[in-house]
Amino acid sequence: MIPDKQKIIDASIRINPYINRTPVLTCNTIDKLTGGNLFFKCENFQKAGAFKSRGATNAVFLLQDNEFVNGVATHSSGNHAAALSLAAKRRGIKAHIVMPDNSNKVKIRAVENYGGIITFCEANLQSREDTLKNVIEATGATEIHPYNDYRIIAGQATAGMELLEDLPDLDLIIAPVGGGGLLSGTALAAKYFGKKTKVIAAEPAGAPDAYKSFHSGTFVPSVSPETIADGLRTSLGSLTFPLILEHVHDIVLVSENGIIDAMRLIWERLKIIVEPSAVVPLAAILEGKINVKGKKAGIILSGGNVDLDNLPF
Amino acid sequence: MIPDKQKIIDASIRINPYINRTPVLTCNTIDKLTGGNLFFKCENFQKAGAFKSRGATNAVFLLQDNEFVNGVATHSSGNHAAALSLAAKRRGIKAHIVMPDNSNKVKIRAVENYGGIITFCEANLQSREDTLKNVIEATGATEIHPYNDYRIIAGQATAGMELLEDLPDLDLIIAPVGGGGLLSGTALAAKYFGKKTKVIAAEPAGAPDAYKSFHSGTFVPSVSPETIADGLRTSLGSLTFPLILEHVHDIVLVSENGIIDAMRLIWERLKIIVEPSAVVPLAAILEGKINVKGKKAGIILSGGNVDLDNLPF
Repeated sequence: MIPDKQKIIDASIRINPYINRTPVLTCNTIDKLTGGNLFFKCENFQKAGAFKSRGATNAVFLLQDNEFVNGVATHSSGNHAAALSLAAKRRGIKAHIVMPDNSNKVKIRAVENYGGIITFCEANLQSREDTLKNVIEATGATEIHPYNDYRIIAGQATAGMELLEDLPDLDLIIAPVGGGGLLSGTALAAKYFGKKTKVIAAEPAGAPDAYKSFHSGTFVPSVSPETIADGLRTSLGSLTFPLILEHVHDIVLVSENGIIDAMRLIWERLKIIVEPSAVVPLAAILEGKINVKGKKAGIILSGGNVDLDNLPF
Repeated sequence: MIPDKQKIIDASIRINPYINRTPVLTCNTIDKLTGGNLFFKCENFQKAGAFKSRGATNAVFLLQDNEFVNGVATHSSGNHAAALSLAAKRRGIKAHIVMPDNSNKVKIRAVENYGGIITFCEANLQSREDTLKNVIEATGATEIHPYNDYRIIAGQATAGMELLEDLPDLDLIIAPVGGGGLLSGTALAAKYFGKKTKVIAAEPAGAPDAYKSFHSGTFVPSVSPETIADGLRTSLGSLTFPLILEHVHDIVLVSENGIIDAMRLIWERLKIIVEPSAVVPLAAILEGKINVKGKKAGIILSGGNVDLDNLPF
C-alpha cells in the first residue's frame, strides 16, 4: 500500500536511533550564482554515506519475526549494499549481498566493513538476478529491493520530511532520479508535509529513462546508460513510476560536463565530499533547466561515496 | 601586550557577525582506529575556507580611524591573503596583497573574488618584503602580518575558545603549527578556558623549524621546507615563539605519507574537504606520535582550500 502520512512519520521514529539527522547547508556564492535560496540536505553525511540507510533501516526493522531469522539479501553494486549490510548488522541479522565482480573496491570494502556477506556474480542483470535467486534459496533470506518496495520508499521519504520540518516554506525540492525510491519518497513527503512544495527531478542525459518514462507516460527501461552518476543508471520500478507520474512536477536532463562542474563547485565552495549522483539537481539549475530565481529550493545531496582514485577532475 | 582572557572574549564578540561558528564533528571509525574520542573543529567551513578569517577580521575591525583610511596590506600566497581581503571588504576598505607570481590559481582567484588588490612579486622572501614595502609606501596601507601580531593571535584563539565552550573537559587540543598564530592562540585559549587541557602541536617532518625551536628553546628559522602542507612552511614569529615555549605541552613531527593518509581518511570517512595542513594533527595520532587512548581530544581542522587539480591521491 502506498505509504500514507502516518507511515512516513512511523518510519522516521523507527529509524531515528540508527540514522543521522543530516544538516542543511547554504552557500552565499552558489545563491548569487543561481539567484535562488538553495538549501542542501546533506545525505552524504548519512550513515554509510548515503540516503539509502533510511530505506534499508526502515525495511530491516519492519521485518517480522519469521522473516528476519534468515537475514536479508539484495543485489547491488552500490550504496544500497552498504546501507543494507549496516542496517542488518544493527538488527543482528545477516545480509547477503550479490555484487558484480567488477564493483569498485571502495564499495566492496564498505560492505565487508559492515559485515555483509558478499557473493560475486558477472556484471549483468541476468547473472545478478540468478545469483540472488540461488543465494535466497540456499539461505532463506528475505529480499530487500533497493527501491521498488514501499518500506524503502517510506524510509527515503524521511529525508524530505526532515527538510520540510526545517524549512516548511520551500517552493521546491529537487532530487536526483535513478530507480525512483528517493524521488517518489520525496514527492510523498512534499505532498504530506509541504505547503505547495513542488518536487522536480534531475537525471543524467546519458541515462534518460525516467525522463522519457515521465514525459511519455509509459515505462521506458534504462538501456546502456552512460553516466558518471553511477547511482542513477537503473530503471524506474513498478511501484515508483506511478508515484512519480502522479506527484512529481517535472523531470529534466543534465549533461555529463554539467555534473562534473557542479560536483567541483560543491567540493570547492561547500567543502564537502559528494558523489556525482548527488549533484545532478544543482547541475540542472546551473544549466538553466530549472529556474530557482527568487525561490527557496531544497536540494537533496544524495550521497558522498566517491572513489578518490578515480575523480573526474 | 599578550592577549588576556578578556581580549579573546572581546575578539570573539567583535568577529562573530562576520565569521562562522564552525561545527564540531565526530567519527566512530576514527575513534575506533585511534582509541580516543576525537572532536574535529571544522575551520574548513570557516569564511574564506580557513581559521585565518578569525585573526584577519579581528585585526581589521580593530584598526583605528586614522589607520583604516588607506586600507591594509600583507604578503601572502595563502589563506591569510583571502581572509584579509574578505575582512577588508566587510569593513569597506582596500586590501593590498603581495603574492608570489607562482601562487596557485585557486588562491589568486579567491583573493580577486574578495576584492583584494594583487601585486605580484618573485617567489622569494626578499622580493615579497621589498614589494610589500613599496606597496605600503605608495598606498599608506597598514600592514597586517599573518601571525606575528597579537590582534591576529587573539582572533585565532577564538577557535579554541569555541571548542572549549562546546567541550569544556577536553584532555587535549591538537593544532598544526606553521607561523604559530593558531597554535599560540589555541594555547592561550586552553589556559584561559580549559580545565587542565593540554595543547600539543604537530608539524611536518619536512618543515621542522617549530619542533627544533621548541625542543632547543632557541629560535630556528624554516629553511627550504619541503612539505605538501603548504600552510606550515613558515618560521615562528618573535611574538608566537615565546607563547608556544611557555604554554604548549609538546610538538611532534609527522611524515608526508602520514599527512596524505590522514587527509584521505578524513575525506573518506567525514566526507569533508580539508587541506593537507589541517590533517597534520590526525597524522600525528595515526603515526603513534600522540597517544589519545581513552582521552577526549579536540583537533583543529585548520582549513579546506585545496587545489582539486593537484590532489596527492
